[in-house]
Amino acid sequence: MSGRGEIDRLVTLLGRLPGLGPRSARRAALALLRQPQARMLPLADALAQAAHAVRTCSQCGNLDTSDPCAICVDPSRDEGLVCVVENVGDLWALERAGVHRGVYQVLGGTLSALSGTGPDDLNVQPLLDRIAAGGVREVILALGATVEGATTMHWLHERLARFDVRISRVGQGVPVGGALDVLDDGTLAAAIMARRPA
Amino acid sequence: MSGRGEIDRLVTLLGRLPGLGPRSARRAALALLRQPQARMLPLADALAQAAHAVRTCSQCGNLDTSDPCAICVDPSRDEGLVCVVENVGDLWALERAGVHRGVYQVLGGTLSALSGTGPDDLNVQPLLDRIAAGGVREVILALGATVEGATTMHWLHERLARFDVRISRVGQGVPVGGALDVLDDGTLAAAIMARRPA
Ligand SMILES: [Zn+2]
Ligand SMILES: [Zn+2]
Repeated sequence: MSGRGEIDRLVTLLGRLPGLGPRSARRAALALLRQPQARMLPLADALAQAAHAVRTCSQCGNLDTSDPCAICVDPSRDEGLVCVVENVGDLWALERAGVHRGVYQVLGGTLSALSGTGPDDLNVQPLLDRIAAGGVREVILALGATVEGATTMHWLHERLARFDVRISRVGQGVPVGGALDVLDDGTLAAAIMARRPA
Repeated sequence: MSGRGEIDRLVTLLGRLPGLGPRSARRAALALLRQPQARMLPLADALAQAAHAVRTCSQCGNLDTSDPCAICVDPSRDEGLVCVVENVGDLWALERAGVHRGVYQVLGGTLSALSGTGPDDLNVQPLLDRIAAGGVREVILALGATVEGATTMHWLHERLARFDVRISRVGQGVPVGGALDVLDDGTLAAAIMARRPA
């Protein structure tokens, strides 16, 4: 298989995607290589377009093609109801479920001694600014039921306690030790509906 | 999630890759979107480069960046020993195992009433031409131990019987009902070593 630098490079890069091992990367590469015009070039184009278009929303931390993101500028969303999530994958999961009609704050992580993530590493200042400016009635802490999630919710609760804002957390529905973005829509809906004061 | 056409398109195209369901496609897209410069653009570039560079070898049916492919022009390979495989994935598997020192013929499928693949759909003429031109001592039939594989090997054996060429098939090592490209290197080596007259 010498002299096929382009093909090897493609297999290597595909193999670095989460969920794709070396074997499935080879299968994916083969499927693409068999249809260069119909499959490879469209994917190459989609990647290049998205790479140039993607922005991190300076308001909420979402990934979108505009800043502020489509959610933050959507007049039909309730700006007074802010849902705090760990990452954009969690935000996508809640949006797919269609269970949150407010806006978001994406922390970009949870407090973790193990990974060395401290308070300064979390994207929380925009939320504090929004609360200080008034107009936020309720903050929903929608972090996973892990040690890190619980620690982070506890820490956020302390930081937000001095403001006149209701603080709730997703309750029933999030399995112990479970991440949010693996849950089905019904479970997510139940978790949001059954939120309780934090 | 309205207004994010580029991101949705990327998730859709990634989700069409074999081995990536909608969920892992979203995970892959997120991992890429988080590093547009470091991950997305290199992958986009690799796809575009490979799409423009890839060729189907007119001699053996392999996918490579040159035609004839690197294997066909490699003077160290034994042109008298031709290994017949179903698809390029099988060829790659044998090359990774390093168990075949000859050249290949990639059929592009197996005879199958179900999928409507008939003799005319198989890329076998180059092999017949090579044999007719002389210089081929042995043809190894390395198809999977499936009904289609067995049918195809039987059919190939009949087509090749009139030539003065040894015909063998991979034997011990290929599990019944198993495909070739899931086998470990040792099993592939055993199958090649234990080949027997077809
Ligand atoms: Zn936003
Ligand atoms: Zn070739």
